[in-house]
Amino acid sequence: KHIVLLPGDGIGKEIMESAKQVLDAVAGEYGHRFTLQEHAIGGSAIDQYDTPLPEATIAASQEADAILLGAVGGEKWDAMPSEKRPEKGLLGIRKALGLFANLRPVKGFPSLLHASPLKEHIIDGSDILIIRELTGGLYFGRPSERRDNGREVVDTLHYRRDEMERIIDKAFQSARLRHNHLTSVDKANVLESSRMWREIVNEKSHEYPDVTVDHMLVDAAAMKLITQPNQFDVMVTENMFGDILSDEASVLTGSLGMLPSASVRSDGIGLYEPVHGSAPDIAGKGLANPLGMILSVALMLRHSFRMETEAAAVERAVRECLDQGYVTSDLNISAGEMVGTEQMTAAVVENLT
Amino acid sequence: KHIVLLPGDGIGKEIMESAKQVLDAVAGEYGHRFTLQEHAIGGSAIDQYDTPLPEATIAASQEADAILLGAVGGEKWDAMPSEKRPEKGLLGIRKALGLFANLRPVKGFPSLLHASPLKEHIIDGSDILIIRELTGGLYFGRPSERRDNGREVVDTLHYRRDEMERIIDKAFQSARLRHNHLTSVDKANVLESSRMWREIVNEKSHEYPDVTVDHMLVDAAAMKLITQPNQFDVMVTENMFGDILSDEASVLTGSLGMLPSASVRSDGIGLYEPVHGSAPDIAGKGLANPLGMILSVALMLRHSFRMETEAAAVERAVRECLDQGYVTSDLNISAGEMVGTEQMTAAVVENLT
Ligand SMILES: CC(C)[C@H](C(=O)O)[C@@H](O)C(=O)O
Ligand SMILES: CC(C)[C@H](C(=O)O)[C@@H](O)C(=O)O
Repeated sequence: KHIVLLPGDGIGKEIMESAKQVLDAVAGEYGHRFTLQEHAIGGSAIDQYDTPLPEATIAASQEADAILLGAVGGEKWDAMPSEKRPEKGLLGIRKALGLFANLRPVKGFPSLLHASPLKEHIIDGSDILIIRELTGGLYFGRPSERRDNGREVVDTLHYRRDEMERIIDKAFQSARLRHNHLTSVDKANVLESSRMWREIVNEKSHEYPDVTVDHMLVDAAAMKLITQPNQFDVMVTENMFGDILSDEASVLTGSLGMLPSASVRSDGIGLYEPVHGSAPDIAGKGLANPLGMILSVALMLRHSFRMETEAAAVERAVRECLDQGYVTSDLNISAGEMVGTEQMTAAVVENLT
Repeated sequence: KHIVLLPGDGIGKEIMESAKQVLDAVAGEYGHRFTLQEHAIGGSAIDQYDTPLPEATIAASQEADAILLGAVGGEKWDAMPSEKRPEKGLLGIRKALGLFANLRPVKGFPSLLHASPLKEHIIDGSDILIIRELTGGLYFGRPSERRDNGREVVDTLHYRRDEMERIIDKAFQSARLRHNHLTSVDKANVLESSRMWREIVNEKSHEYPDVTVDHMLVDAAAMKLITQPNQFDVMVTENMFGDILSDEASVLTGSLGMLPSASVRSDGIGLYEPVHGSAPDIAGKGLANPLGMILSVALMLRHSFRMETEAAAVERAVRECLDQGYVTSDLNISAGEMVGTEQMTAAVVENLT
C-alpha cells in the first residue's frame, strides 16, 4: 500500500512522526508493506513553493492508496491573500481528489468523559457519526465575488443532484453498518437546496427500508447535539452545515485531541487527519497529543485498506494507553501521568506489539 | 403606545394571553396606556386567510410602535408548498418591516442553572448577547432555484455593504452598553462575503476604539460556545450563522423556555418573541411556560418604548417567581411547585403589583 504523508503546519510535523511509528509497528506485526512518501501542503508549502498546494503534492496524492494529513494553518499566513492561505491547500486537495464524504465519528472514551463540558448523564452513551458533504455547496459555488464596486457581495450555495445523491447514499449505507438510524439535517424551511436535499433523502429512503430516517432543521440539530447527543446515530448534511455541526460535536466528549476524521470517495481512497488544528502555540515543543493522528491511521486501515483487525488493534492500543493513565496536556484531566508526543506514541507502539 | 399582537400557532395563543395580562398590570402600575390589536400570522393565518402573512397584518404592523409575536409553525402545515408555510409569515414580516437586527440575550437564571446540560463551572457567569443579521444573506438572496430540469440547485448568500455596516454598527453600540467586547463571527477562510464582513468590522473598529474586537470562524465559535461560554460578551454574525449559533446558545443555560428575543430596526420599532417554538404537543393544555413571552414584553418596554423602570420591574417579577419556587414542566427541574401558564402568569402579575 502506498501512502502519501502531508505533515503540514504546526504540530502536524510532530504527530506525523507518530503516525509513521505506528504504521511501522503495524507493518511489522501483521506482515504488511507500506511505502510512505512525504509532500508539502499548507503554510509550509507556501513558504517553500509559494503555493499551499504544489502540483507535485496533487500528482503524488492522485497515485496514492491513501493520504495522511497532519494539520494546516497558522497566524503566520493569516494576512496572505486568499489564494495563498494554508486552508486553500486543504480545500484544493479535497476537490482535486473528489473526496466528497467527510466522516467524523464522535465517541467519548469512558476514561476521559469527565473532561466533557457536558454533564455526564447527558454525554453518556453518545456515539455519533457525522457525515458532511465536502466538495460542494458554499465552499465551491460560483459566483463568489464583490459587485458594483464593492457595494455588494455574493457567495453561491450550489449543488448538483448527483452530488447530493452520492453523499446521501453513503449516509444510508453507513447507517446500515451502525444502528440503522439516519438524521438528515437541512434548512428546508428557507433554502431551495435544502428542499431538494430533503426530497432526495425521502426518495432514497425507499431503497433502504431498514433505516429509520429523521429530518431535522440545522438550528434544531445545533441544540439537540447539546441537549440529547445520545439520540443520534448517523447524521448527514451539506458542507457548511456539516462544518459547523461537526466542530460543535467534536467538543462534546471533552477529548477533541483524540478525534480522527476521514475524507473519502467511492473507490475507498481517502485522506485521514485528526480533527484538531495545527496548534501553533505548542508546535515544536513535543507536547502535542498524537492520538487523534494515530486514530486517523486506524480509520485509514479500516476504510481504505479494509484491514479491520489491524485498525481494531490500533484502537485497542490507544484505549490501553488511556487505561494505563497516560494523558497529554490538552486533555484537561488532572489525574494520570502527563506525557509528551514521543512518550505517548511509544506507549501506543508498545501496546501494539 | 400601540402594540400589534400576533399570537400565531400552538402555544402562541396561550402565552399571548399572559403578555396581555402583564401589559395590563404595567399600564395600571405606571399609568401607561397600551392599545392592543390582534392579527393573524403563520399557520392559523393560512387556515383562515390562505396565506401565512395577510395584507392586514402587514399594514397594521407597519402602523404599530411595537409587535409581540407568540410562535409560528406546526406539523399540520409541514406538507404545504413553500409559499404557504407558517415560517414564511415570520420571514415576510421581518423583511416587510426591515427588522434587520435580531438580539438574542443568553443569560442563565441562577436558580435554574442546575438544569443546564453543561457543567456548572462551565456555564457559570455566562452572559452573552448574540446579534444576528436578519434580513439578508442566504435567507433572501436570489437566485434561489432549481436548474437544468432539477439537476442542479442554487441558493445565494447576498449582502449589500450597507446591510453589513448597519448591523455591525449596532453590534459595536451594543458592546459599548455592556462589557466592550465584540466577537465577530464569519467564515473568512472560505467565503468572499465573510472577507468583506471582516473588512468592515476592522474599518468600523476605528470608530469604536473603546471596544475590543475578536474575529472568530463560525466553526470555532460553535465549539467555544460550549467549552467557554463565559468568554463572550457581544457576538455578531450574518443571518444563517446567527440562526445556528443563537439556537445553539439558547440551550446552554438549561432554560430555553425563559429566553426572549428582539428583532429591531434603527428607529426603535421592533418585534419581540420568545425563542422557543410553537410546541404543538402541549398546545391548548395550559402547560406552556409564559416567561419567555413575558420577558419579551420586558425587552419591548426597554428597547422600543424606553421604559427602563418598567422593563426592570417585569424582569424582577419573573425572577421572584423562580425564587418562590414556581416551575413549569419544560424547565427540567425536579424541585419546586409545578404550575401551568395561568398560574405562572398570575404569580408574575402579583409580584409586579
Ligand atoms: C480550514 C477550513 C477551510 C476547513 C473547512 O471549513 O472545511 C476546516 O474547518 C475543516 O472543517 O476541515
Ligand atoms: C422559522 C425559521 C424560518 C426561523 C429562521 O430560521 O430565521 C427561526 O428558526 C428563527 O430563528 O427565528
